[in-house]
Amino acid sequence: MEFGLQSSQKIGFSPWWSNAISLVDSLSTRVVEFFRKVKKTGEDDPRRIGHSFKVGLALTMVSVFYYVTPLFDGFGVSTMWAVLTVVVVMEYTVGGTLSKGLNRAFATLLAGALGVAAHQIAVHCGEKGEPILLGLFVFALAAAATFSRFIPEIKARYDYGVTIFILTFSLVAVSSYRVDELVQLAHQRLSTIAIGVATCLCTSIFVFPIWAGEDLHKLVAGNLEKLASFLEGLSAECFAEKGGIENLEGKTFLQAYKSVLNSKPTEDSLANFARWEPCHGRFWFRHPWKQYLKIGALSRQCASSMDALAAYIITTSTKSKTNTDPDLQLRIRAACKEMATESANTLKELSTAIRTITVPSAAGRHASAAVAAIGKWRDSLSDDIALPEFLHVATTASLLADLVLRVQKIAGSVEELARLAHFKRPEPLVHDAKIKPVVDEHSRSHLSITLEK
Amino acid sequence: MEFGLQSSQKIGFSPWWSNAISLVDSLSTRVVEFFRKVKKTGEDDPRRIGHSFKVGLALTMVSVFYYVTPLFDGFGVSTMWAVLTVVVVMEYTVGGTLSKGLNRAFATLLAGALGVAAHQIAVHCGEKGEPILLGLFVFALAAAATFSRFIPEIKARYDYGVTIFILTFSLVAVSSYRVDELVQLAHQRLSTIAIGVATCLCTSIFVFPIWAGEDLHKLVAGNLEKLASFLEGLSAECFAEKGGIENLEGKTFLQAYKSVLNSKPTEDSLANFARWEPCHGRFWFRHPWKQYLKIGALSRQCASSMDALAAYIITTSTKSKTNTDPDLQLRIRAACKEMATESANTLKELSTAIRTITVPSAAGRHASAAVAAIGKWRDSLSDDIALPEFLHVATTASLLADLVLRVQKIAGSVEELARLAHFKRPEPLVHDAKIKPVVDEHSRSHLSITLEK
Repeated sequence: MEFGLQSSQKIGFSPWWSNAISLVDSLSTRVVEFFRKVKKTGEDDPRRIGHSFKVGLALTMVSVFYYVTPLFDGFGVSTMWAVLTVVVVMEYTVGGTLSKGLNRAFATLLAGALGVAAHQIAVHCGEKGEPILLGLFVFALAAAATFSRFIPEIKARYDYGVTIFILTFSLVAVSSYRVDELVQLAHQRLSTIAIGVATCLCTSIFVFPIWAGEDLHKLVAGNLEKLASFLEGLSAECFAEKGGIENLEGKTFLQAYKSVLNSKPTEDSLANFARWEPCHGRFWFRHPWKQYLKIGALSRQCASSMDALAAYIITTSTKSKTNTDPDLQLRIRAACKEMATESANTLKELSTAIRTITVPSAAGRHASAAVAAIGKWRDSLSDDIALPEFLHVATTASLLADLVLRVQKIAGSVEELARLAHFKRPEPLVHDAKIKPVVDEHSRSHLSITLEK
Repeated sequence: MEFGLQSSQKIGFSPWWSNAISLVDSLSTRVVEFFRKVKKTGEDDPRRIGHSFKVGLALTMVSVFYYVTPLFDGFGVSTMWAVLTVVVVMEYTVGGTLSKGLNRAFATLLAGALGVAAHQIAVHCGEKGEPILLGLFVFALAAAATFSRFIPEIKARYDYGVTIFILTFSLVAVSSYRVDELVQLAHQRLSTIAIGVATCLCTSIFVFPIWAGEDLHKLVAGNLEKLASFLEGLSAECFAEKGGIENLEGKTFLQAYKSVLNSKPTEDSLANFARWEPCHGRFWFRHPWKQYLKIGALSRQCASSMDALAAYIITTSTKSKTNTDPDLQLRIRAACKEMATESANTLKELSTAIRTITVPSAAGRHASAAVAAIGKWRDSLSDDIALPEFLHVATTASLLADLVLRVQKIAGSVEELARLAHFKRPEPLVHDAKIKPVVDEHSRSHLSITLEK
């Protein structure tokens, strides 16, 4: 079969059955691939399946208002708004649902009242003046509200509320031109939206609740653990008594801290939702969620240091060694091992302390030991008075050298962009200076290793 | 006046006028603060004002359907859907509006068709079976669609479409139980949604268009420039012929790279919107937007190296110096200056190349010069054969020492959390080991400097 396919490709002719078979083949691969992804999504966090069922449940509950005649007669077509509210308000976490639900309820109330007021004013302006005045109102309020969404504080907490405000005000103000019983309509709509919000909140809080605060708590503790596992790996692989830094390509601990670098958006949104959540489990309302964000920011700084360290170690790990002062080296290596181990222990202690909501007791001891190790390695250099000052310059140079190689990578990537996006050529005056990445003995090992996560 | 306020606070009694005055005072401060923020938001990017007017314009245009009687008679209450569509579809960038508009249109079409089909099946099941079957359909589709939103690929591009799919299917399927002319209703609703989407697209594309692709292009080029300005500052302040690394607190160049560290979410969303945009200006449809994300990722790696370097320099800048081998130090310092300057030039060249869409011609020369400088400083060490190998260990130790101090900061932050959130005390067995941050001679200077941006 394979031979047949190949030969038909070669002569530019393919019988219909091989075409059909390859089509079915690629289709079935895609379907299998899709189901593999679906399975993985469920396995990664089984609560996602629960959430999906909760959304289905809330929607089915709310649609009862359509099926039961006495209920439907009470609200009429406005029942639609209950369904609409459930679809847009229902979020993954309790805090998200609360935030959206309360935003929706208050924005609807405020905008509805303003809309009715706008109608009362416009009605006095005669048949021709009314639509013009209503149009002006809608234009002014929509523009002002849209602009307010660019203010960071409003964007972070009330973005959805402002959208609903514009929506409700426009609908009430504009449709008031055609509807006679405006107050009755507003009342019906408010009731159905309240029903929708209440359905969402009940399902969210009472059926397998997923708390944003708890997720944030676990995320921050988990990130500290990831940082610790990098340091543990470092201590075990790089500063062993014998051997030292060897070829480290493909070691998993070198990837441990990477996900921490990009955790900011998740932490921000979880903290934003958590502040809406009522007392639950071990957390109360007004739990110091902001402090978690501070720990998160410091963790990212730490991860950033680890990134520099990992890059440096990878670059130098393939070099051959010349052990001329084995004693001094052993002493520094021992100090390194202590710094890494004690810092790893500190982080693990802190992570456990957060997880178990216990005051971190042993972390202080480990942190002190790590700082003491810094002193130890500086002392080991003090035999030669010139060395410490020299080291500052040399270390800076090493870090800069790494930076240079990273800049070179950017240059390569921009050149690739220039090729892909057909950038125009510069004036022929300087055309001899085309980019030619210089790969010398020092940078080759670095460039061959992909640092991207 | 101040005296009166203080004394009244002291004796726990305040006359009503001082209360009123302080209330007015704090209120006016808040109002002034708010308007300052509004002004800054507008000044930061004046296009925001344009966008706000565009939303107002689109809404006013769409509400004409309410005011003109022949138009309103054609669509009836369904006109509401045009207003609703404009409010939720109108986004800041053309790509955002296109993405949401097309998602909305196709999801409505698909879900509407499925809803009508569900109605046709359910109608055959008798009066009692119909609502049960419809409820089952809604439950199953809503749950499946909600789950699909957790798959990263769907989340990134079709999240809004899936929401609209659930919404439309539920509304059509459920309301089919009460509405007789279902097809007419679906037709009206589809037309009004199409009108809403068309209004948004026209306003977005033809009135002061804001292109996500162009913003991404400028953002990536601007980030490269920020990285360059850090290196320029470093070269000027730290590696001057005389003086060297001095007290660097408060220097602005040390903050230059910070915003690059957190640019990932903005870049991702802009790239996601840019792929929907048609050919505009210097960019065509299917411009290699993914390559911008690659450059962005490499820029963040670079910024992360800079963070480590800046932390190291700040820690050591306050130390006194003992110049015992001034010649060697001068040579290393010169190499450092060359590395920093040439890398800064490379980045500036690349930024200019992207901005002007020109192949980067001179960047290659600068990059080579920077790499050559690495070789130079390594050569300057080769007089003593033991030094390079020793330096690897020593540099690693320096980096680790910085890491240790950052871990200590985390420990302090977690202790603060334990205090704020009233973590429980551990068993009294180990109560003697309370955290006591060890601040020794080496770490004091570091801890006093806040590294947080």
